[in-house]
Amino acid sequence: MFFELIHTENGSKARAGLLETDHGSVQTPVFMPVGTQGTVKAMSPRDLQEQKVQIILGNTYHLYLRPGLPVIRDLGGLHPFMQWSGPILTDSGGYQVFSLQDLRKLDDQGVSFQSHLDGSRHRFTPESVLHIQRILGSDIMMVLDECPPYPSERDYVIQSNRLTRQWAAEAKAIYDSTEPYYAHRQWLFAIVQGGVFSELRQQSARDLIDLDFPGYAIGGLSVGEPKSDMYAMTDLSTDILPPSKPRYLMGVGMPEDILEGIARGVDMFDCVIPTRNARNGTVFTANGKMVIKAGRFKQDEAAVDALCPCYTCRNFSRAYLRHLFNANEILGLHLATLHNIYFYQWLLREARQHILDDSFILWKADMMPRISQTIEEITTV
Amino acid sequence: MFFELIHTENGSKARAGLLETDHGSVQTPVFMPVGTQGTVKAMSPRDLQEQKVQIILGNTYHLYLRPGLPVIRDLGGLHPFMQWSGPILTDSGGYQVFSLQDLRKLDDQGVSFQSHLDGSRHRFTPESVLHIQRILGSDIMMVLDECPPYPSERDYVIQSNRLTRQWAAEAKAIYDSTEPYYAHRQWLFAIVQGGVFSELRQQSARDLIDLDFPGYAIGGLSVGEPKSDMYAMTDLSTDILPPSKPRYLMGVGMPEDILEGIARGVDMFDCVIPTRNARNGTVFTANGKMVIKAGRFKQDEAAVDALCPCYTCRNFSRAYLRHLFNANEILGLHLATLHNIYFYQWLLREARQHILDDSFILWKADMMPRISQTIEEITTV
Repeated sequence: MFFELIHTENGSKARAGLLETDHGSVQTPVFMPVGTQGTVKAMSPRDLQEQKVQIILGNTYHLYLRPGLPVIRDLGGLHPFMQWSGPILTDSGGYQVFSLQDLRKLDDQGVSFQSHLDGSRHRFTPESVLHIQRILGSDIMMVLDECPPYPSERDYVIQSNRLTRQWAAEAKAIYDSTEPYYAHRQWLFAIVQGGVFSELRQQSARDLIDLDFPGYAIGGLSVGEPKSDMYAMTDLSTDILPPSKPRYLMGVGMPEDILEGIARGVDMFDCVIPTRNARNGTVFTANGKMVIKAGRFKQDEAAVDALCPCYTCRNFSRAYLRHLFNANEILGLHLATLHNIYFYQWLLREARQHILDDSFILWKADMMPRISQTIEEITTV
Repeated sequence: MFFELIHTENGSKARAGLLETDHGSVQTPVFMPVGTQGTVKAMSPRDLQEQKVQIILGNTYHLYLRPGLPVIRDLGGLHPFMQWSGPILTDSGGYQVFSLQDLRKLDDQGVSFQSHLDGSRHRFTPESVLHIQRILGSDIMMVLDECPPYPSERDYVIQSNRLTRQWAAEAKAIYDSTEPYYAHRQWLFAIVQGGVFSELRQQSARDLIDLDFPGYAIGGLSVGEPKSDMYAMTDLSTDILPPSKPRYLMGVGMPEDILEGIARGVDMFDCVIPTRNARNGTVFTANGKMVIKAGRFKQDEAAVDALCPCYTCRNFSRAYLRHLFNANEILGLHLATLHNIYFYQWLLREARQHILDDSFILWKADMMPRISQTIEEITTV
């Protein structure tokens, strides 16, 4: 069995589950750090293991362009290439291609685009992105979808939904009739779209459920819409999606957004926030986020989070981290990333335990104001 | 005893020794990675330990300006600030200040300069740099010296030698009459100058020997002079310096330069080459150096050095490293730095063992052509 729903909290939609892949099992809800170009930025594979990362995300668009499929195929796939032995989910590349705006042209069969690196011309179709992900060898593959920008007109989203459904059907047929390129199994997720129009979201979910995918993503959110819309669309989608299949809320997000997603029955998350914000000097803790470059931390001897057992917090002061950022030292990027990844993994482990204990909603109510705030004061030790 | 000369090779000047500091002992000959701003670039302290680094170098000029002495003093000194528990040597800051050219003004009592960061005005004297290094808490401190540029006129170097001697005498008097700021002992090294003029080198060495320092550096080399001059000046200096004191060849260098230095009786080395070149994509091996970004490594499945047991070589292909550099990923800088530091530490451990076995000169003759070459071919595994 690919996904096992272990427990749904009494009185909420929050779920604890288990994903079983040939690269190991994944306890859900889970956060997947983003490894765009064959590495989670500033982390080695052993760093990820130490932070108890269960599964990472790779970006098909970037990997397809660089190093390219021949290199990754010759090295035996993305797992051996980057020496990550745990599960990998790859996106379809569609989101990146649609972000290219002037460099891409959409038609009913796929999307033609020019590389942002060298302007070379390429084309993604439902079939080609499946083939690419077969070569990458990800454990979980995503279908090509069309993600309408926010805001979009209702008529545009209706047409977009039609394309997303058509492409999902094509991808599913190819998925069902092809074998993995390597010796391990691969699963395919469809992506619910529909913008912020309730009935279009519901329609998209129903369309895709009919195609019977191993898992479902909720896409097209966290693209600029109000948070209330994001939560509402998530809620609508998980109300319809089959409880026996994993649900993945794409590109979300801040710690508080993740807890809101879990409360609405989401099992999987990914986002660049913990890694990107780390490199900008923002660290997350159970008591809020902290801009470590701030002058107030100049002589602060305390750890980022005195209760956090990560390597960064066990060893280094805020003053030292601040210095590393001010001096543009790579070690600052590394230590902040390491802590943020540890924190996200910790947060989702805690969430899961509280779901199993039927105390998630209470715990979330306590956590939300804490993790949403910004730490301004310095600590005297 | 601070330094113990354990063995000098039969038939050469190569020495194996032991430095004893309150932060641990150091087997010499030793290479000290450079930690300019309170971190060896792209390395955490545990990375350095894993690479068997025994002692690191810190730059007084940079640390004095940023984060500044109040921060480092409040955090308990450079060791706890950067969480490096092994020995640290700090330079005097003089070399960086003299490199500022238009931003500094030399007089007989010291040097006034403007910060390269914000233009603020500062002054280093023999006394102040000793005081700064007391606050940094380095195990080995360096005197302020004047390093003549290459080329310099003989008359200039004569005047420069006079200043270097005068400042060394002042520093030694202050060193002898002050106590460490923290609970561990600190040693002070003088710096032999004299440009590439044999008798001025010899005179400088004799001047400083009279002042009876715990150790002696050979400075003002590797600043653009021919290698033959560098080797000759090193040879002259070690012929005169007392065998019972450690000798430190500052700012050297390439693996082959280090072996030449060891052959001439040098015990300690530092240089940015292993770390800086790593960040430029050059890795060193026992069979030569390799520009990992080169296209020929695009699909090369082999490790940088198949016989190297470092984390990088145990796990990653040249193809992956090349990809990381092409994609500007931080992990590339980290993995290349890690390997280069491991290689330098390995090279000096091997050198020491061969000295103890009286086989250093033979081993060096075998190694020199190998480490000096550039690896062009790819390996098929």
